[in-house]
Amino acid sequence: MDLTQHIESRRDAYLQELCEFLKIPSVSTQSAHKTDVERAAKWVADKLRAIGMDSVEMIPTKMHPLVYAESLRAPGKPTVLLYGHYDVQPPEPLDLWTSPAFEPTVRDGQLFGRGTADDKGQVHIHLSALDALVKASGKLPINIKILIEGEEEVGSVNLWDYVQGNKNKLQADALIVSDTSMLGAGVPSITYGLRGLNYYQIEITGPAQDLHSGVFVGAVPNPLTILCELFAQLHDKNFHVTVPGFYNDVAKPSSAERKALLKLPFKEKEFKKTVGAPGLSGERGFSLPEQLWYRPTLELNGIWGGYTAQGSKTVIPSKAYAKFSCRLVPNQNPDKITRAVEKHIRKLLPKSVTCKFDVHSQGKPWVAPYTHPFFEVAHKALEKGFGKRAVFIREGGSIPFVTQMHDTFKVPCILLGFGLPDENAHAPDEHLSLENYYGGIKAVANFYQGLGNL
Amino acid sequence: MDLTQHIESRRDAYLQELCEFLKIPSVSTQSAHKTDVERAAKWVADKLRAIGMDSVEMIPTKMHPLVYAESLRAPGKPTVLLYGHYDVQPPEPLDLWTSPAFEPTVRDGQLFGRGTADDKGQVHIHLSALDALVKASGKLPINIKILIEGEEEVGSVNLWDYVQGNKNKLQADALIVSDTSMLGAGVPSITYGLRGLNYYQIEITGPAQDLHSGVFVGAVPNPLTILCELFAQLHDKNFHVTVPGFYNDVAKPSSAERKALLKLPFKEKEFKKTVGAPGLSGERGFSLPEQLWYRPTLELNGIWGGYTAQGSKTVIPSKAYAKFSCRLVPNQNPDKITRAVEKHIRKLLPKSVTCKFDVHSQGKPWVAPYTHPFFEVAHKALEKGFGKRAVFIREGGSIPFVTQMHDTFKVPCILLGFGLPDENAHAPDEHLSLENYYGGIKAVANFYQGLGNL
Repeated sequence: MDLTQHIESRRDAYLQELCEFLKIPSVSTQSAHKTDVERAAKWVADKLRAIGMDSVEMIPTKMHPLVYAESLRAPGKPTVLLYGHYDVQPPEPLDLWTSPAFEPTVRDGQLFGRGTADDKGQVHIHLSALDALVKASGKLPINIKILIEGEEEVGSVNLWDYVQGNKNKLQADALIVSDTSMLGAGVPSITYGLRGLNYYQIEITGPAQDLHSGVFVGAVPNPLTILCELFAQLHDKNFHVTVPGFYNDVAKPSSAERKALLKLPFKEKEFKKTVGAPGLSGERGFSLPEQLWYRPTLELNGIWGGYTAQGSKTVIPSKAYAKFSCRLVPNQNPDKITRAVEKHIRKLLPKSVTCKFDVHSQGKPWVAPYTHPFFEVAHKALEKGFGKRAVFIREGGSIPFVTQMHDTFKVPCILLGFGLPDENAHAPDEHLSLENYYGGIKAVANFYQGLGNL
Repeated sequence: MDLTQHIESRRDAYLQELCEFLKIPSVSTQSAHKTDVERAAKWVADKLRAIGMDSVEMIPTKMHPLVYAESLRAPGKPTVLLYGHYDVQPPEPLDLWTSPAFEPTVRDGQLFGRGTADDKGQVHIHLSALDALVKASGKLPINIKILIEGEEEVGSVNLWDYVQGNKNKLQADALIVSDTSMLGAGVPSITYGLRGLNYYQIEITGPAQDLHSGVFVGAVPNPLTILCELFAQLHDKNFHVTVPGFYNDVAKPSSAERKALLKLPFKEKEFKKTVGAPGLSGERGFSLPEQLWYRPTLELNGIWGGYTAQGSKTVIPSKAYAKFSCRLVPNQNPDKITRAVEKHIRKLLPKSVTCKFDVHSQGKPWVAPYTHPFFEVAHKALEKGFGKRAVFIREGGSIPFVTQMHDTFKVPCILLGFGLPDENAHAPDEHLSLENYYGGIKAVANFYQGLGNL
């Protein structure tokens, strides 16, 4: 049996195994799920052992464990470091899921469940590809180091500490990541740029306690109104961010890059349909792919304060809260942006309130020149796995680890994404196309085999 | 024993009885408390029977029952209609209470618990005064009709239907209400004006479902940002409301009224201390009592949307919500204001979102000329009960029933408030001064006796 035949023969077994993995609610951001996160780590470690990997370890951290494994039995062949994460986003709001978040379900060729696209499904594509390579030829064609973390959705802080302390152990010729999306259905893609992410929370306090609005309204600072007025001032009419210096370091795409961008089969109609809003809304003067990949943003992710339950309550609350984040692009500096954002916010707020400004996490943007021969192998492997032409794209999301690894090891980072933009990663009814799941397994197996033939 | 001695001798018994009443969590706005609300109604009915009132009824409505009782055994004497409410505001946020909301506790001469000031404590002042009058002289000096409702905190809709259908039954020479505050500690007060209240909720929808901010941010309408931009546009720099026509019908105080206003012992320092914010904030060009009593407002009471739990979630939510309300002053018309507010909001919102606009409740403002002889009796009774000079004031809050009764029966409405502005009505650690509780019982007993001597 050749590699492709072998993968075809194991379709049901792979899917069943992935469902086991998805059933573990490894929500890294919620402390109530700490033991579930640990269970997911153990599941990954057991699977790596079953494939036949060496030196499988669960590495404890201050928060959630890392899983490491390696197979270094192909002397003279390239060594790659595979990165992925087994933690997932919170499933809330639960009532908007068609089938429960942690009960994976197939409907119309899609596998639904939290973590299907981001990132358990994509991690499992690699585990299955490795399994297929070992089963088909008795050994792996390359050397591989595997590092799967449990804190991607909370900023990867402990991962980074571990990497800093284990540079020799993790050294490789390339970093491989599957945690991104294809440009669209039927367009296998290699991502060569990512935005960075700074995540903030603010607490605005006016009155010392909640007040009866009838008695006090008209004369006291309302933190809800002040929060609204603050965020209304953070964009101008063209939806440019008003923080002074915010765009100072933003790199412009080269004319060659802009030309390639315009040639991409970017389907604006499909994008609009996925969003499902009455209209789009973005920074004026830029095309849609530019807005999504080349432009930095400042965006609210949550607001709350006052009475939010059923019915009416005539209250002026003491406090108002917001979670918000900046997506950063080359060559913006996360520290510099944080200082500028905090300074601007404190300047805009009236003296009738106080403000607590918390930085949840920071992450640099990343962009790679895709000229290394490994990229060519990946391109061919994608075309073989999917039977379709592959493209090079950027992405709007953030994988802090990629930037950090690139800065530390100065090796190519190859991002092979098998999700799709409309698969609701981070939202209810997250799903993964089974066609892309199986296509991904074939492409990755071919990629590793291709690297072995270099 | 004279009346005052009798009240003194029953101090502990009255307090103990009030605590029983306060322990019932009669939160009218939360459906989970429906049976508690019913229990509170029954408690009031039982107490009215124990005092010796006639025709005690619990009147079912579409929501929460009304309690009615009467005593018409004083031919030739005035007949008053006493109004109060046995329902209370939600206790949330629970963690900010020093002692639990429904476990009344005395600290430093203050009785703490939800409903102490608004309005169970004040209702109980009247029940105790009536009890004292009956116990001291064997009968009541006047005719009295008592109507205690359970929907004041949700807009009094069913009360109003009942009043419309029972005009003859409820006809009286005056309406008596104790649901307001004194101007300050040691200043017994009669309130002759109240603001009206329109309460709204809006739901703004952008994307059809929550989106991963990494993939979509920069190009899609974020309902959180749009909500902020909307509310930032509803006030100008002087904190005037920008809704066209909002101030058209606002009556200006007469020069005599403004003169009296300036003479009131209004303690701005104490007000600031109660609020506890780093500064005050109100409509420019008006004094503090004017901002609170004579000027209409538009105020946020709650906002929410996106991720609001622990940690970070990079989401662009589908929906954002706000609860907000307008305080209205003579001669603003609630329907007209609602039409103007909804029209303005729909005009301000961008076409990239849709908006659901709900009216929770509407209520007219009210102001009375305090020239009727009953007001003079009330003024003297307050001075006797408290041993302090009494004043005439307005209040910023709303009691829709007062306006409606005034419009329907064209009789004087006499508002004897025994709360204080810093007693956290509608907030955690709501409390009532025991000095004012007992002073109130004496004042009310003297008031009813004074009306009998007219």
